[in-house]
Amino acid sequence: MRNIKLLIQYDGTNYHGWQIQPGQKTVQGVLQNKLSRIIKADVLVSGAGRTDSGVHALGQVASFKTESGMTVEQFKIALNSILPRDIAISNVQEVDSNFHARYSAKGRTYIYTILNGKTPSAFLANYTYQVPKTINIKSMSAACETLVGTQDFSSFASTGDSVKNFIRTIKYAGIQDTRHLARDNECLMPFACAKYKLIHFRVEATAFLRCMVRAITGTLLEIGKGKIPAEKMRDIIDAKDREAAGPNLPSRGLCLVKVDY
Amino acid sequence: MRNIKLLIQYDGTNYHGWQIQPGQKTVQGVLQNKLSRIIKADVLVSGAGRTDSGVHALGQVASFKTESGMTVEQFKIALNSILPRDIAISNVQEVDSNFHARYSAKGRTYIYTILNGKTPSAFLANYTYQVPKTINIKSMSAACETLVGTQDFSSFASTGDSVKNFIRTIKYAGIQDTRHLARDNECLMPFACAKYKLIHFRVEATAFLRCMVRAITGTLLEIGKGKIPAEKMRDIIDAKDREAAGPNLPSRGLCLVKVDY
Repeated sequence: MRNIKLLIQYDGTNYHGWQIQPGQKTVQGVLQNKLSRIIKADVLVSGAGRTDSGVHALGQVASFKTESGMTVEQFKIALNSILPRDIAISNVQEVDSNFHARYSAKGRTYIYTILNGKTPSAFLANYTYQVPKTINIKSMSAACETLVGTQDFSSFASTGDSVKNFIRTIKYAGIQDTRHLARDNECLMPFACAKYKLIHFRVEATAFLRCMVRAITGTLLEIGKGKIPAEKMRDIIDAKDREAAGPNLPSRGLCLVKVDY
Repeated sequence: MRNIKLLIQYDGTNYHGWQIQPGQKTVQGVLQNKLSRIIKADVLVSGAGRTDSGVHALGQVASFKTESGMTVEQFKIALNSILPRDIAISNVQEVDSNFHARYSAKGRTYIYTILNGKTPSAFLANYTYQVPKTINIKSMSAACETLVGTQDFSSFASTGDSVKNFIRTIKYAGIQDTRHLARDNECLMPFACAKYKLIHFRVEATAFLRCMVRAITGTLLEIGKGKIPAEKMRDIIDAKDREAAGPNLPSRGLCLVKVDY
């Protein structure tokens, strides 16, 4: 069996997330369906990150095993020609049989984008969360430093989550501007304009708890608004209590930008 | 009666164009409906450009007359709070009673964007037309020069159009790159991934015929692909025959970026 790795981007606006769910349109579901038509066989596509409903991806990675004799270039062309416009395959590679998109992943990077200003954007609306009032970015950046490390992140865990181990390792957490992201080819903002102030919270971890990034960004925003002092981030983490942290921000501002192996 | 001018942006993907049509969702229809709820009276909102189904706007202008005592800032906040996310009001101004968004307009600028490359983008897909093969931009630019001036543009007129006068004045026509637009704060995709090559056809005229920009861009693309020599643009215009020109490109690549008064 050959093992094929896909680099995938999607606009998650019209999907119930990555993972297949009965009766719902999901990215994994659409992708498996189109791929099985191409290779004329059932196929299981495993993704690196189970993005939630409405969350986007610029660098989702998935892998599947197949007996097909198609070249990687043929896979890319065939998939892009039948996938809907809001899902695109950026790259296809043949990889070692041991590779698994989810289990082999060593790090995942997400970016949450806040549009800070009074004027909304019709084009950024599905990819940002708008905050009209001024935000203190320095306080947010200071609080980000406390997030880095191997810690129990129960305070940012979805209450309905069935996992028992809440310890995760955050390798990087910080606030970036759009210029920075553009330089690194990591921006998904069509029609963005210099007059919009975009605040990007970038976070890299070995793995994340469900809704963790949205809960962390919600807490950082409370800090940026001056409702919580930056120093309190330590207490919030130590509380190991979801009630101690800020609210989840909406999923539309979140994007899985990179998976490292 | 006060006269109010609106600067409007919209993602046209889910609209049957600007103008009200029975049984269809249109930008004018949604805007009038929301505005009449705010001012608690019927209202007629006149737009500068009747963008077609699927066409976007960064700088559409509309005006309406009202007895309302609301400030321009209140209009902006109230409208943005109840409009759907794909329509946004960038600015509201009180203007002279003689001002009319459509009849006072002296020029309209459209940009058509081609994504030139083999890899599609899930985020630019609704705002671009993808052309995988290499395009000769120099030929397209040369042909653009022939477009400028006061001419009969029948060759680029929609065959179903009921207008009788096909003479229009093109003030500028040219090919621009994304960096250029970003520098001029022209709000068109400056932050899109640098790995995508975007070709922007920018055209300014006093007014346009229906589907004119899409027909011109379709013809320019034939030239860029080497199917038609650049020098033939003169013959195509002179033919005054829609059959002489190239096909209309899809509406999703088109955006009304500016209206001048």
